[in-house]
Amino acid sequence: MLLTALQYIGLVAFAASGSLAAVRTGLDVFGVIVVGLTTALGGGIIRDVLLGIHPPSTLHSWPYLAVCAGTALAVFVFHPQVAKVRRAVLLADALGLGVFATAGTTIALSTGAPIYTSCLIGMTTGIGGGALRDLLLREIPLVLRKEIYAVAALAGSVLVGIGHALRLPAGPVTVVAAAAVVAIRVLAMWRRWNAPVAKAPEHD
Amino acid sequence: MLLTALQYIGLVAFAASGSLAAVRTGLDVFGVIVVGLTTALGGGIIRDVLLGIHPPSTLHSWPYLAVCAGTALAVFVFHPQVAKVRRAVLLADALGLGVFATAGTTIALSTGAPIYTSCLIGMTTGIGGGALRDLLLREIPLVLRKEIYAVAALAGSVLVGIGHALRLPAGPVTVVAAAAVVAIRVLAMWRRWNAPVAKAPEHD
Amino acid sequence: MLLTALQYIGLVAFAASGSLAAVRTGLDVFGVIVVGLTTALGGGIIRDVLLGIHPPSTLHSWPYLAVCAGTALAVFVFHPQVAKVRRAVLLADALGLGVFATAGTTIALSTGAPIYTSCLIGMTTGIGGGALRDLLLREIPLVLRKEIYAVAALAGSVLVGIGHALRLPAGPVTVVAAAAVVAIRVLAMWRRWNAPVAKAPEHD
Repeated sequence: MLLTALQYIGLVAFAASGSLAAVRTGLDVFGVIVVGLTTALGGGIIRDVLLGIHPPSTLHSWPYLAVCAGTALAVFVFHPQVAKVRRAVLLADALGLGVFATAGTTIALSTGAPIYTSCLIGMTTGIGGGALRDLLLREIPLVLRKEIYAVAALAGSVLVGIGHALRLPAGPVTVVAAAAVVAIRVLAMWRRWNAPVAKAPEHD
Repeated sequence: MLLTALQYIGLVAFAASGSLAAVRTGLDVFGVIVVGLTTALGGGIIRDVLLGIHPPSTLHSWPYLAVCAGTALAVFVFHPQVAKVRRAVLLADALGLGVFATAGTTIALSTGAPIYTSCLIGMTTGIGGGALRDLLLREIPLVLRKEIYAVAALAGSVLVGIGHALRLPAGPVTVVAAAAVVAIRVLAMWRRWNAPVAKAPEHD
Repeated sequence: MLLTALQYIGLVAFAASGSLAAVRTGLDVFGVIVVGLTTALGGGIIRDVLLGIHPPSTLHSWPYLAVCAGTALAVFVFHPQVAKVRRAVLLADALGLGVFATAGTTIALSTGAPIYTSCLIGMTTGIGGGALRDLLLREIPLVLRKEIYAVAALAGSVLVGIGHALRLPAGPVTVVAAAAVVAIRVLAMWRRWNAPVAKAPEHD
């Protein structure tokens, strides 16, 4: 129940993030919907392919599909003023990242996968949709750029893994962990936390 | 039988489309073959991974492989005059799109997947090979660019789904639906149908 | 035993190749680790997804993960002088290519797949990690560029397939075939072997 609600929140957030990025790139309405769907469904499809769930559950539920396509269409029609778009994309992306990373970990654990495998699959579920979005739009994936990103997803997945090891109830743990991911991402963007970069002597 | 013939036509069309695009990018003979094979086999591999068919059937049939590699090699050796290349790539691509989208839907239906899931997997089968080709060659995928593309694949998949619901024979329905996809694509290119683009206020 | 040792060598080589390339692109420490892990684990994950091994074995073994992350971190901290980096990336890449292509073929054969299917899956295992690395870093994949690359991987896979057909012991055959791949790649880079390129009349 709680997991289903989270799933919808994550789908809407990622569909919005993907379609906003596509609108900014100047794609037409169908391109916007394709990028929105890919961003929203991509992480879950990767997760189900890795776990051997066939066909992927996100392709199996028409309400999911309708919500994603509707979100992308709404973004196309009502997309906000430019000044706000970049920030909105990043916020929606943080929310999707948190929900998918933690729900992905919970789903992997429920198939009996070991905890560290589940954490990795959860992290991949979180970063997969956004990585596909950036690859399709020919940007270097956000996950590789300056701020804390994959680490935030991994932190949320590890929290879910710890909760699982302590036999805490999966639903509340997932919500808390997802909130932690969003908080880490927002703090990282707000305070411009950057991880160290290797000295690149070739540019000296 | 009919499905097998269609499959070969689609493989040759996509292998030609991929290797022509690779020739235009200036790749060597091996790069041309790799891009040709990836374009031809990519959609079917994605389909089989989503449906849980292991190992993917296109990797399992050496005639398929020989036909694809032979097509790519023939394109490399005899590739037509430049003026005709761009149009030839687009036509071959339309043919492959139609065949793979509709045959993919038929195959998904035969595994017992629901109709709308089968339509989505069929559409993905159709657009997958070309998307991989464009990602490898660092172009924004054709599927996201101006003309009707994913929608044509989806239309063909939905026609197959309707035929399935009406219990019409799969073979003829697939042929008609594939022809419809090609017709839509060719009309869209010929009449330069463009879907609406969101106003991008940032460029004002 | 021998296969396990080879697997570690390949993982270290590809993790080093991926993280060196990421350091050269100026990514931060987390981006370097993500690219290193993706390069090292990507080929094996693709292999297991194609063969239906769920969840992928490389995600299932924490020593593999620790070795890859440790390698990427070590490369980030101690990455050599610039002048040597490009050559080191290419050498590590050749080693990973040889190990993964041949071990991948052996693993595919052990699942009962036909020989030519196993050769293709082995070649894909070899070139998959590097292709993902190049896609993430927005370079045209090394596999498509000038020197003999996919052909080297295919040659190693075919050697393993021949050994299998002749019922030779898998371990030594894999080692010899991997060495052959590395030798072909190094020779191709050293002698600047280039495959023919199609005449591109459009630039005349």
